[in-house]
Amino acid sequence: MKVVIVGGVAGGATAAARIRRLDEQAEIVAFERSGYISYANCGLPYYIGGVITDQAELTLQTPESFWQRFRVDMRVRHEVIAIHPERKAVSVRNLSTGETFEESYDKLLLSPGAKPTQPELPGVGQVFTLRTVEDTLRIHEFVKTHHPRSVVLAGGGFISLEMAENLRELGMEVTMVQRPKQLMNPFDPEMASFIHAKMRKKGVRLLLGHTVEGFEEAPGGVRVLLKGAEPLEAELVVLAIGVTPDTQLAKEAGLELGVKGSIAVNDRMETSVPDIYAVGDAVQVQHFVTGEHTLISLAGPANKQGRIAADNICGGNSRYQGSQGSSVVKVFDMTAAATGINEQAARKAGIECDKVYLSPASHAGYYPGGRLLNMKVLFEKNTYRLLGAQIVGSEGVDKRIDVLATAIRAGLTALDLKDLDLAYAPPYSSAKDPVNMAGFMIENLANGTVRQFHWDEVDALPRDGSVTLLDTRTAEEYQSGHIEGTIHIPVDELRERMNELETGKLVYVICQSGLRSYIACRILEQNGFACRNLAGGYRLYESVMLDRCAAEEAFPCGMDKR
Amino acid sequence: MKVVIVGGVAGGATAAARIRRLDEQAEIVAFERSGYISYANCGLPYYIGGVITDQAELTLQTPESFWQRFRVDMRVRHEVIAIHPERKAVSVRNLSTGETFEESYDKLLLSPGAKPTQPELPGVGQVFTLRTVEDTLRIHEFVKTHHPRSVVLAGGGFISLEMAENLRELGMEVTMVQRPKQLMNPFDPEMASFIHAKMRKKGVRLLLGHTVEGFEEAPGGVRVLLKGAEPLEAELVVLAIGVTPDTQLAKEAGLELGVKGSIAVNDRMETSVPDIYAVGDAVQVQHFVTGEHTLISLAGPANKQGRIAADNICGGNSRYQGSQGSSVVKVFDMTAAATGINEQAARKAGIECDKVYLSPASHAGYYPGGRLLNMKVLFEKNTYRLLGAQIVGSEGVDKRIDVLATAIRAGLTALDLKDLDLAYAPPYSSAKDPVNMAGFMIENLANGTVRQFHWDEVDALPRDGSVTLLDTRTAEEYQSGHIEGTIHIPVDELRERMNELETGKLVYVICQSGLRSYIACRILEQNGFACRNLAGGYRLYESVMLDRCAAEEAFPCGMDKR
Repeated sequence: MKVVIVGGVAGGATAAARIRRLDEQAEIVAFERSGYISYANCGLPYYIGGVITDQAELTLQTPESFWQRFRVDMRVRHEVIAIHPERKAVSVRNLSTGETFEESYDKLLLSPGAKPTQPELPGVGQVFTLRTVEDTLRIHEFVKTHHPRSVVLAGGGFISLEMAENLRELGMEVTMVQRPKQLMNPFDPEMASFIHAKMRKKGVRLLLGHTVEGFEEAPGGVRVLLKGAEPLEAELVVLAIGVTPDTQLAKEAGLELGVKGSIAVNDRMETSVPDIYAVGDAVQVQHFVTGEHTLISLAGPANKQGRIAADNICGGNSRYQGSQGSSVVKVFDMTAAATGINEQAARKAGIECDKVYLSPASHAGYYPGGRLLNMKVLFEKNTYRLLGAQIVGSEGVDKRIDVLATAIRAGLTALDLKDLDLAYAPPYSSAKDPVNMAGFMIENLANGTVRQFHWDEVDALPRDGSVTLLDTRTAEEYQSGHIEGTIHIPVDELRERMNELETGKLVYVICQSGLRSYIACRILEQNGFACRNLAGGYRLYESVMLDRCAAEEAFPCGMDKR
Repeated sequence: MKVVIVGGVAGGATAAARIRRLDEQAEIVAFERSGYISYANCGLPYYIGGVITDQAELTLQTPESFWQRFRVDMRVRHEVIAIHPERKAVSVRNLSTGETFEESYDKLLLSPGAKPTQPELPGVGQVFTLRTVEDTLRIHEFVKTHHPRSVVLAGGGFISLEMAENLRELGMEVTMVQRPKQLMNPFDPEMASFIHAKMRKKGVRLLLGHTVEGFEEAPGGVRVLLKGAEPLEAELVVLAIGVTPDTQLAKEAGLELGVKGSIAVNDRMETSVPDIYAVGDAVQVQHFVTGEHTLISLAGPANKQGRIAADNICGGNSRYQGSQGSSVVKVFDMTAAATGINEQAARKAGIECDKVYLSPASHAGYYPGGRLLNMKVLFEKNTYRLLGAQIVGSEGVDKRIDVLATAIRAGLTALDLKDLDLAYAPPYSSAKDPVNMAGFMIENLANGTVRQFHWDEVDALPRDGSVTLLDTRTAEEYQSGHIEGTIHIPVDELRERMNELETGKLVYVICQSGLRSYIACRILEQNGFACRNLAGGYRLYESVMLDRCAAEEAFPCGMDKR
């Protein structure tokens, strides 16, 4: 059997090694357009920032080492330019010599990845993108030789965030421009507000809701033209507005395509054409939560798919179980992670969802070093099916998102979270782990023990006396900032001072995180008041408000008091 | 409704608060024998070690604060001395005044906890135990005033390990004595060897397999008498050989008891006597994995049970789903964690189990700071039901154990681990997370892609030429230490040098971690050799051997080369 692989990174490299392990006799040839194979894609921004200091770390595997161990003929700087399914061959161009040749195959695996989206903008050639080791070296070299003091990053996803952190740590003035009004679209806007606050606190300027219209040469750099706003000038511009499946080849060969030009595959990673498989950022996957076809460009799925394609190429029957978009990103000293779907995706998929917010400590409060986690857990109304989670914090974020990702994958309900038997010792967690806490809160909603209202309903609440807005925090907390129109009774005084509340009026109860206001709701409900508890508390509301204010002014605002 | 609670820590305090939230009218009285309520049980050793510097941190909740928020009458230094189910009352002694009185109840909740096991040993009164805040203050005071330079810790469980670390960090000479031949019985011995190595490296002397026979006063301290060995002398002795359910009260009241004198309860946390509930370290639980009745003294289960008892006391119908013993402990700069059952427990429960060992990096190798995890995952033969996991390492240990704990709870099989969609970015994980890797390895076993042999079979393998022992590591690795009787061919030279192996003989293949030897097995199998792969590699084997050697000499041995 002769296997030809298009692409020698992530899915392609994984598949090549797996095929060899399963079939010592197979002939395996992989063509990689760039000069490097199996490189550390997700580490590239950290090389530019000097966190990873040795270029060799990025490219641990070489064609030579791959040959030695796996007898895979990894040909770098070779681009596959056409597929000929009818005669089971590909046309290849040697990018070093320009020479073109045909290579036959019994099985073909496409792992071309995705390329940075390059919009049709005037002057876009002047700016950098980041995909390959070569791109990295180019930016690295530019930084080393030109010492740019300012950078504009167009885009607000994983790579853009990582670049912002790395370039900021190098001392540059960093401006991020992004058409949507938030960074990191896996997050709902109120959760993104915590990320925005961190970026601004670290001195990154965010221009959200702005559209880049083009680029011009400027003295000593590039002028970034914005729609309806003053242009920006910077000595370095990096375009990271997303990735597009690199599927021209598949399209020309007549393979069935899926969403956004991706390659359609079944759960065996087979394309519509016999003996052609495809994996990685170029393929359409089924979303594990919604069941919809989608594109998820992440390394974890790519590697898993590579293994599955390899199994099937070697006569096995492995099935890909779908992606759920679990992801994590370092944001300076903060971590932001998500799994499953967010509210917007739920709405799009027609799933009616509910949610809890909580801000528990990452580990026992009495053990030093604990930090608050900002958590949101989404579940389907009525069925309590877990839909997704988003967490932003300093410590223990990745742990809780992986626990929740596992719970989603296993089909646990949101109510099952309370029963999870998780490991506790003071340096690591609390006896009631944050994930258990989310379960307790959801059980309270399910039982009708408490009813919630949300941050985006606050401003529209009537201030005409027809309802009561009650803040139950301490006097100190209340004075440092509160919602307009609230009356203030600390929870511990509520039983004595209940007569200050007008009976017969719905009470909207507020505290810092939602915990004390929940207790207040319980006290009031049992004394005849109908209540709603502010989910996420003043903390979440304030974060969104400060974010809005900062976004309007496009510079850090009101953040100093945090 | 009047609820009386025996014990104001963990389960008792959780239940009290929950009952109040559910029932604003209930009268709630809790009697706590010690002077403190709701204290940070698991943090006590860290106060002695000065990691937690403020005593107030340990005792954040006071009877006053609990009254203010929850209107729970928390009476400290009150011991319940008898239960009278027939007239629904308890007899209580005020430990400050000596006065005794009766208190009636409608519902009674027992949360007495477990007390340090105090064996009938001569002179045992001279030594410290650690259970309450008072115990902690006593040891803290002794350390502050007497400045002991040496300590003997009897016992090798969580508290003992935490004490060892904390006292060692204070500069004491620490000796741990323990009857079993290993510390931390949730771990199988080969996994405990990594813990032993860390303890020894940090200068803790381990006397394992030694029995304490008694204590004598000695000049300036205590003489610890050992069976068949020289006595030890130390200026401080702490007894932490385990805990025993504190159930004298329940027994005298005629409540049905379970294993080891624990209180028998159903899944509603109801005892055998109507209107009496029990929770926490004193009750018998059903083990989630084996289904057997057992005792699991951990804070997580106690808190969950408290909540469930409260729900049911207030007319609800909550059910405890069993404990699976998920636990974690800090061992200096190392973390050790376990969930489910170990091999010994599987054998005892008559479950036939298989296992994989792996030592992946905690995060992507090219991002700085990654450290190896030592992982063991246990599953049932044939069914591939997940049974348990043990992990020892520096970073990311608690995350992976919680993911595996969740997988066990959700009923995932060991094969499902490969499909988990976990969050990856270089600072947090690898594209193939360690948990995925375990799944891949188990799938390879299931498919017959590889067969294993184990560290405890190595020494008994014939060296008479009837089988081949093959080490596939680099020359450098081989020279720094290898298994006797092996021939050495690095994996990358195996295809050329296969003729050096005698055909027809079973080949036992070894590398450092088990990965390269797996690849070697695949090469050899497809060339007609039957192979077995050393699970966990030379790394695991060496750790056990060094541990044995150190244990025999009872001082650090051969560790310097690690």
